[in-house]
Amino acid sequence: MRPFMAEVDLNKAYRLLNVGGTTLVSAAYNGVSDIMPATWACALDLAPTKATVVVDSSHFTRPLMEKSGYFSLQLPTAAIVKETMRLGAVSKFDMPDKVEKSGAKLFTMPGFDMPLVEGCAAWMIFKILSEPHNQNQYDLFIGECVAAWSDTRVFSNGHWHFEKAPADLRTLHYVAGGHFYTIGEPLVIEGILPEED
Amino acid sequence: MRPFMAEVDLNKAYRLLNVGGTTLVSAAYNGVSDIMPATWACALDLAPTKATVVVDSSHFTRPLMEKSGYFSLQLPTAAIVKETMRLGAVSKFDMPDKVEKSGAKLFTMPGFDMPLVEGCAAWMIFKILSEPHNQNQYDLFIGECVAAWSDTRVFSNGHWHFEKAPADLRTLHYVAGGHFYTIGEPLVIEGILPEED
Repeated sequence: MRPFMAEVDLNKAYRLLNVGGTTLVSAAYNGVSDIMPATWACALDLAPTKATVVVDSSHFTRPLMEKSGYFSLQLPTAAIVKETMRLGAVSKFDMPDKVEKSGAKLFTMPGFDMPLVEGCAAWMIFKILSEPHNQNQYDLFIGECVAAWSDTRVFSNGHWHFEKAPADLRTLHYVAGGHFYTIGEPLVIEGILPEED
Repeated sequence: MRPFMAEVDLNKAYRLLNVGGTTLVSAAYNGVSDIMPATWACALDLAPTKATVVVDSSHFTRPLMEKSGYFSLQLPTAAIVKETMRLGAVSKFDMPDKVEKSGAKLFTMPGFDMPLVEGCAAWMIFKILSEPHNQNQYDLFIGECVAAWSDTRVFSNGHWHFEKAPADLRTLHYVAGGHFYTIGEPLVIEGILPEED
């Protein structure tokens, strides 16, 4: 396990996606792997967490997902915004060493062969629930979360606490054209909902 | 049109959803309407914008969406965080005047009958693309955007500019248990991607 990395309860992993950060998607098949940014990723269910992600058929990552049946969603932070941009600026079809040249530092977790990127706030691995119509018609993939980890400096016990960590650990929220926002300040509203852990 | 409200190009409306803000969903059918928060909303396509939203079958809003074939996605701001919480704290099945009691101020736009909420950063109206399997199996709805408006103090010309507006116009990003983050500061990375408008 990396420094500060700890497992996340699969029934609370959806909260990693709730704040709406841009993701990095990775997949691997038969010794070939790729990593690409995807802004269109979203929680779909809890207990256990499911999620959707849109991956166009033009991407090198897509057949790796389809053939392996797995993908990761990771939440890059401000610390690796340039690596994130470089992973999205060019396709591995056009630059076979795109990932190496991006500057992203990679690792894997036991039992899973897709590359994960250091400097993310969280890492989730999903098993694809095959839905050919969604995949073909909308480039939409549905996955069930089978493993999740967070950087405990920003997420632990089912909650984010960005405000207690260095600013460069904040998640990235992409607009377009190299323009992101980082996640901002907490706003806690008490007395309306019943207590929840 | 409300003060500061202007139309958004339907081919750029996906950028309203890109930053990952929590939404308010509204729908109306036969004179009955409802509004509820939904964290699990996401862009799906561009030109024109499509989006997904997860609305569980227990919600009063759901049959209004199914019967009318339309729903809205709106982006509440910090200014209306309490109204947003109140709209999610109770079902209209249990409290028929829930919307009135929430404190949310409503309006409609010509040609559309669902209530929209003042104080949002953006408002989008979607026509449902019927996908019974997704709706029944995953509570997942797909819509094509047919109208979109933004508060020009925070979004204009296809880009967000929260940093130039009052802090209470920032979007809300829900975690759980009454705990939100607002969107933070811009981060612009130049020289990696080609210029985009």
